[in-house]
Amino acid sequence: MLIGGIEAGGTKFVCAVGDESGEIFDKVIFPNKDPDDTLSEAKQFFDKYSIEALGVGSFGPVDLDKQSGTYGQVLHTPKVKWRNFPLLSRLQNEYSIPVYLDTDVNAACLGEYKYGAGRNVNSCLYITVGTGIGAGLVQNGKLFQGKNHSEMGHIFVQKHVDDSFAGSCPSHGACIEGLVSGPAIEQRYGKKGIELIDNKAVWELAAYYLAQAIVNYYVILSPEKIILGGGVMKQEKLYPMIREEFTKQMNGYLKIDNVDDLIVAPELDDEQGVKGAILLAVND
Amino acid sequence: MLIGGIEAGGTKFVCAVGDESGEIFDKVIFPNKDPDDTLSEAKQFFDKYSIEALGVGSFGPVDLDKQSGTYGQVLHTPKVKWRNFPLLSRLQNEYSIPVYLDTDVNAACLGEYKYGAGRNVNSCLYITVGTGIGAGLVQNGKLFQGKNHSEMGHIFVQKHVDDSFAGSCPSHGACIEGLVSGPAIEQRYGKKGIELIDNKAVWELAAYYLAQAIVNYYVILSPEKIILGGGVMKQEKLYPMIREEFTKQMNGYLKIDNVDDLIVAPELDDEQGVKGAILLAVND
Repeated sequence: MLIGGIEAGGTKFVCAVGDESGEIFDKVIFPNKDPDDTLSEAKQFFDKYSIEALGVGSFGPVDLDKQSGTYGQVLHTPKVKWRNFPLLSRLQNEYSIPVYLDTDVNAACLGEYKYGAGRNVNSCLYITVGTGIGAGLVQNGKLFQGKNHSEMGHIFVQKHVDDSFAGSCPSHGACIEGLVSGPAIEQRYGKKGIELIDNKAVWELAAYYLAQAIVNYYVILSPEKIILGGGVMKQEKLYPMIREEFTKQMNGYLKIDNVDDLIVAPELDDEQGVKGAILLAVND
Repeated sequence: MLIGGIEAGGTKFVCAVGDESGEIFDKVIFPNKDPDDTLSEAKQFFDKYSIEALGVGSFGPVDLDKQSGTYGQVLHTPKVKWRNFPLLSRLQNEYSIPVYLDTDVNAACLGEYKYGAGRNVNSCLYITVGTGIGAGLVQNGKLFQGKNHSEMGHIFVQKHVDDSFAGSCPSHGACIEGLVSGPAIEQRYGKKGIELIDNKAVWELAAYYLAQAIVNYYVILSPEKIILGGGVMKQEKLYPMIREEFTKQMNGYLKIDNVDDLIVAPELDDEQGVKGAILLAVND
């Protein structure tokens, strides 16, 4: 059975055709422009194949509350042309096959859970730290969803005593996304993260905040595995720094068997999103 | 079918005999002393009835990880005599009927979900603000549990700019429990909350922190209902203050239909814990 998957990112779309085994047969990546152009580019790609279902992991926020009148729509995104766009119904009309919609981070979490760093556990949290911060949770083999999807990047954390940066989040200022997302780093230092690679203090502060966010997620969700992905996490030195800070901040309160085994990198080489999108259409 | 329920609190035990309908036929309350005395007092009460199952909502932390060698034990509690006490196996041996163990807040959450403020929703979060702070989540009719139970009172939040109090949590200092639990209020002001009823600034600061904690829980868990109970919440004026602060801090980021309907008081008159404990033995 051929299944289509779309990792619908705010910046780019990844479209792939694969199957239940996690194999990808063909894949294409192109920029996310306005909805019409981007979706017609996706359609051209999928028209080459006889896919029987389509899974979509979308940037957001998207309305995933089936009781809602705007179910399946992109909500108040900064990408103005996508705002209130009825993504799910549009795809259902275009493809006439079952379409499954979830968030990009939930799809990525499902991909890593099934094939990657979470494949040997019952619950895992996938956190992306990049243009934004978000996270998805798989628990007992299923994606967690409340009334709507989580927006875990918007939690508050304790400011570092020496930090006077007000934060870059238009809604919450110094929530975790407003403190250590890519744009937050750029706004704080006037340079992109990539230009700050050798500035140790930059990454110490980032590790301090990310460790706090992970403490919050951990005491609330108690996952077996925490997978940190996204552009900012390409700085591999962050992993040991975050593990050390996390241990310090937890301060022995809960028993952690092995922090190296708890907080880990993704294993799917940036394909967790699209592989997870395909799984959305398999697992239902 | 007669079912026994124990709300095993750090300060007091509530034992009751009831049934699946939520009716309580008999109930007794006594102080939590050392394990032997307290459990024998419970046994005397239950011996008057032919209960067929027993549900226990316990103070904690308790080990609820079935893969763990210490499953069913009370873990590193400040109540030294209870530390490492094998609560579940002790009760199983004493009663020779099925025994179901969960946390006190999870039991209370289940009680409110089934019979109280959460009875018309699919997911609800029950938060207790008292000697400690803790929370339990029911989602799609089931208690949420990761590898172990949640310890939601230990999340970090942003300190108020004018607040120099270091927090009272021995492990985390100014986590939410260290900022607004009963003992935190007493340590901060040198007086018990009950003596500070007319001090508006006390409750404004408490509302500021509790609202932040609720923002964090909300963006992570997206519950339909948030029920706030516990001793500190006996100050009923806190509810409107917390709703107002929550709305301010969310700052329109996610659409909240009606905050008065989202953040509410419990409805079971301090019986949510023991009624939920009975339900633990029904729902399995």
